[in-house]
Amino acid sequence: MNISAINSLNEVYQLAKEEISHKKGNITITIDGITHISHSNDIIGNCLQEWLPEWFKDHGLQIEPNNRTQSFPDFFAIFPDGSREAMDIKCWNANNSPAFDIGNFNGLYTEMYNHPDHLFGKYLCIGYVPTNHGFTIEEIYLKTLWGITGPTDTKPLNVQIKKQQIYAIRPSSNFRKNSDKCFKSPKEFLKSMCETRNKYPSNQQDSIPVDKWYEKLGAYIDNYNK
Amino acid sequence: MNISAINSLNEVYQLAKEEISHKKGNITITIDGITHISHSNDIIGNCLQEWLPEWFKDHGLQIEPNNRTQSFPDFFAIFPDGSREAMDIKCWNANNSPAFDIGNFNGLYTEMYNHPDHLFGKYLCIGYVPTNHGFTIEEIYLKTLWGITGPTDTKPLNVQIKKQQIYAIRPSSNFRKNSDKCFKSPKEFLKSMCETRNKYPSNQQDSIPVDKWYEKLGAYIDNYNK
Repeated sequence: MNISAINSLNEVYQLAKEEISHKKGNITITIDGITHISHSNDIIGNCLQEWLPEWFKDHGLQIEPNNRTQSFPDFFAIFPDGSREAMDIKCWNANNSPAFDIGNFNGLYTEMYNHPDHLFGKYLCIGYVPTNHGFTIEEIYLKTLWGITGPTDTKPLNVQIKKQQIYAIRPSSNFRKNSDKCFKSPKEFLKSMCETRNKYPSNQQDSIPVDKWYEKLGAYIDNYNK
Repeated sequence: MNISAINSLNEVYQLAKEEISHKKGNITITIDGITHISHSNDIIGNCLQEWLPEWFKDHGLQIEPNNRTQSFPDFFAIFPDGSREAMDIKCWNANNSPAFDIGNFNGLYTEMYNHPDHLFGKYLCIGYVPTNHGFTIEEIYLKTLWGITGPTDTKPLNVQIKKQQIYAIRPSSNFRKNSDKCFKSPKEFLKSMCETRNKYPSNQQDSIPVDKWYEKLGAYIDNYNK
């Protein structure tokens, strides 16, 4: 294995594409010497989220876990020039439409206001296919937040709604094959968040007003693009 | 291994106590030949929930998974006399207080009204301790729903509250060491559900009124005890 410096998230992505695309994997649980192979989606996804950062470290990438374990990102990748980038790993069974949780809408709405840099974090999306003996890794993408999200036929942003309450933000089901259906810019994503908030108002008195939210994050984007 | 018939959930519990208490386990994920040992609580708990039913089957227990995969129970154990019992497996890191989700309050409130037999399902609770090389199984209990739940200092039932919304029902933190702090009967549990519903009313128009809920489930218990 040839370890050379990894200089960007794009190089992390290229490494994964080259080395683990179409590779086989398996998960075993052994107790008192009795082994069972796991096939459940939750376990495969969670295990991939553990394995990949360790494997990136083996390839020389410096990784700093996020101390706030409940929020974006899973970790920060730190590059030889001192720069750092926020990165989440999302996994799904590639036989199905991707329906992983990008984050809880209310949580992300508040988090993003307090940490606008989340807008520019990246998502390494891994599609696996379960097999009789484990799984294979079939699809790998590196995406922006706005590049994996999009509207649906009835909603400004694909969110999970149960009994009129908003729960998770979900990826656009088209992000793999037809990224035209995803947002084109961080501002399009911001607008969809605002429309969603207006459509399903928060019942919390301390919720940040939509205008104030958009103003701060819009200004952050303008400044970022300068 | 001596396989003889398993005639009750109590025998399932005894088998687990005798054969896997204090036994070591580990979980590995291997991709393209590179192996990582998993230590995360979510993965250990999910893998135990997969391993145990398979292991019970190896010991001759007939198991029928619940077709409604999102609701209680995980499975039904079927005994040689034709009887069947509902059973969930709950796992937690025994270095911490048990804080596994027994179920979503709103979901369980509705489910229980439609399937009152849930009240008498059993919970096999497994406390594991992570180690450098995997985990050991340290605690095993077979409990009723009312025998693992209880009030807290401020609440009639230990439930998770976030921003004035009820989420999961959690076990009484004392269920292992001081079961006096748990409910003594299914009716005590019912009453705590009603008090909780009154304290945090549902915002759903189709929610079952508390009186009607208690009447149906109370009658079910009276009939069960006859």
